[in-house]
Amino acid sequence: MAVNLAPPDPGALLPVAGVELGVAMAGIRKPNRKDLLVMRVAPGTAAAGVFTQNRFCAAPVTIARKHLRHPVRALVVNTGNANAGTGGEGIERAMQVCEALAAHLGCEARQILPFSTGVIMEPLPAERIIAALPRALFHQDDWLSAAEAIMTTDTVPKAFSRRVRLSGGSATVSGIAKGAGMIRPDLATMLGFVATDARVPQAALRRLVQRVAARTFNCVTVDGDTSTNDAFVLLATGQGPAASARRDLLRLEVALTDISRQLAQAIVRDAEGATKFVTIEVGAGRTIEECRRVAYAMAHSPLVKTAFFASDPNLGRLLAAIGNAGVAALDASKVDVYLDALRVVRGGARDPHYREEQALAAMRKPEFAVRAVLNRGAARAAVWTCDLSFDYVKINAEYRT
Amino acid sequence: MAVNLAPPDPGALLPVAGVELGVAMAGIRKPNRKDLLVMRVAPGTAAAGVFTQNRFCAAPVTIARKHLRHPVRALVVNTGNANAGTGGEGIERAMQVCEALAAHLGCEARQILPFSTGVIMEPLPAERIIAALPRALFHQDDWLSAAEAIMTTDTVPKAFSRRVRLSGGSATVSGIAKGAGMIRPDLATMLGFVATDARVPQAALRRLVQRVAARTFNCVTVDGDTSTNDAFVLLATGQGPAASARRDLLRLEVALTDISRQLAQAIVRDAEGATKFVTIEVGAGRTIEECRRVAYAMAHSPLVKTAFFASDPNLGRLLAAIGNAGVAALDASKVDVYLDALRVVRGGARDPHYREEQALAAMRKPEFAVRAVLNRGAARAAVWTCDLSFDYVKINAEYRT
Repeated sequence: MAVNLAPPDPGALLPVAGVELGVAMAGIRKPNRKDLLVMRVAPGTAAAGVFTQNRFCAAPVTIARKHLRHPVRALVVNTGNANAGTGGEGIERAMQVCEALAAHLGCEARQILPFSTGVIMEPLPAERIIAALPRALFHQDDWLSAAEAIMTTDTVPKAFSRRVRLSGGSATVSGIAKGAGMIRPDLATMLGFVATDARVPQAALRRLVQRVAARTFNCVTVDGDTSTNDAFVLLATGQGPAASARRDLLRLEVALTDISRQLAQAIVRDAEGATKFVTIEVGAGRTIEECRRVAYAMAHSPLVKTAFFASDPNLGRLLAAIGNAGVAALDASKVDVYLDALRVVRGGARDPHYREEQALAAMRKPEFAVRAVLNRGAARAAVWTCDLSFDYVKINAEYRT
Repeated sequence: MAVNLAPPDPGALLPVAGVELGVAMAGIRKPNRKDLLVMRVAPGTAAAGVFTQNRFCAAPVTIARKHLRHPVRALVVNTGNANAGTGGEGIERAMQVCEALAAHLGCEARQILPFSTGVIMEPLPAERIIAALPRALFHQDDWLSAAEAIMTTDTVPKAFSRRVRLSGGSATVSGIAKGAGMIRPDLATMLGFVATDARVPQAALRRLVQRVAARTFNCVTVDGDTSTNDAFVLLATGQGPAASARRDLLRLEVALTDISRQLAQAIVRDAEGATKFVTIEVGAGRTIEECRRVAYAMAHSPLVKTAFFASDPNLGRLLAAIGNAGVAALDASKVDVYLDALRVVRGGARDPHYREEQALAAMRKPEFAVRAVLNRGAARAAVWTCDLSFDYVKINAEYRT
């Protein structure tokens, strides 16, 4: 079902010096599936993360946010159980996992970042995770396996790699992500991990993670439901060339943004029930904030999303969503709308040259853009989203029951 | 498909002195269906309305809002075409209809309130409406026919009547409404008309329409999509007893609220694809506004709505939606959640006495309540909504194409 998204070519995924990956089948929710990932990182690795803004954030999010103040030695990620809405006991169980892994690695529990994804409000089976840790410490350096180990309702593992030339030599960037539903990151996606061997000062990495998230994971939405477990973590192991000069940092930022954008878009391409990948751009607004509001109003409207599913150029639904975005003093009679390069709305009414066949042809493609031009300023924003199909309802009406 | 909603019993619908109803088949979009309603009102009738807040409001909304400043003599309502997103030409065509009706009635065009509902961005076939007006002036006094004439994707006509005792005698209240999708009124539902023969001062009626809308039509949501054509109009013909004393006004308000609540709930019961009617209550919040935010966050979450459809007590989705409502400083560890009378969440985690069978039994009913208690104040709010089913997607993927 994924839209224009092939499984990663294992040969194209590059190991990152200073990152060791291992996966295991811990039987957390179902037997015989990879559901546990341990990422060990070299001493001196800089780490920075952004996390869900949901007030019901999960126990591991609370812990990871706190542990990020200390030098990180490993990340431990389980699927099958989100350890969210689990109160104080959830914190205890996540800490038990951190302590067990720290004992294996000879470090402190506060140097471990825990992440969980899966069903909400079930007790975390910490004992099963702890029992499986030794197997996950078997070092494989296999980013594809790592991507597979963090999948839940994903149908395609999501992993991308590239190199970037810095003045001191070539650095590698590899990343994985997961997520297919409950996706409307409010700082990050459900789970995204991007590592580089470049040497990045901690403070610079903290700025980078915000800037990268804002332009990648924070631009996707499937259903407007911000998860309890969203986390996006950048790791820089420092085993490769330095990225501390301004020019190198900029180059690295471009590479990190590139990999993160591919991961974020892969989440939408593999969204629950998605048959269309739609870029929604809003331009000529007064502020980026209002452009984002208008883009999300379209991306979250069930009527717009079902029209995408039907390849129905239902311009009225697009206009109604724009009009609903809550933008003060928006002059509807100035708004233009395009489907790819085709202008379909001019000055708030149907374009005089509108021909439905052309609009239909644009929307029948598995991938297209909707562009609204507000004609009241110079700001712009874009959001990536998908359609609302029978399968979205089917998957979410059947999952967990 | 409608949830606990039977067609009105024609015998229970009461004529309102001073209101004359007539319907016709104008062939606006499809032949052989009632698609035109004219409501004539007696001279001296007080009228007040509330309208959509969508920035793309339809031409008839713009006109009706303006014409309400003058003494109203008739309402003309067509289905099949919303006359929205139609620019200056839309205004002209709606005015042609007003002028034609005014000529028949011997009044001025500004004494006519026009309303349209149906497909957006198509030119209004004014000539067909004008040609059918004489037939719609044939006086029938049939509220059921009137309710039928304003249906679009509704499956059940919506009409309610009751009497209310005032000090000067008994007054009648009858009302009709339509709407099944694009429903999240932001002042009113798509179309609702409630008439009484009581004599109400114009200024009092203007206050009443706001108060009644706030507690009825403004508490429903199907898909969060505020329509371009929402309108709710109160008419008081003054042919019956006076409602000017404070006590009479209060009694009348109770009756108007009662009829309007039944109409608003009927819209949700007949919502596109609905199989469940769900009351979402949020209590013990700091402000009504934050309670409404939390209620709407649940009512608009596709994950919550698909869980309703599946009768799945997926508590995690409820908590995630509450956590996403954007309520500042909400302490998740204080939130309790009930399904009807059953407490399922206590202090942000699963209730220790939780038994899934009980939660399932509550959610399998076609009608139930979700109640979130924030435990941080004394305000409360309620919203009526429905589930998100296969049929919602089917109806909206197929409508218009």
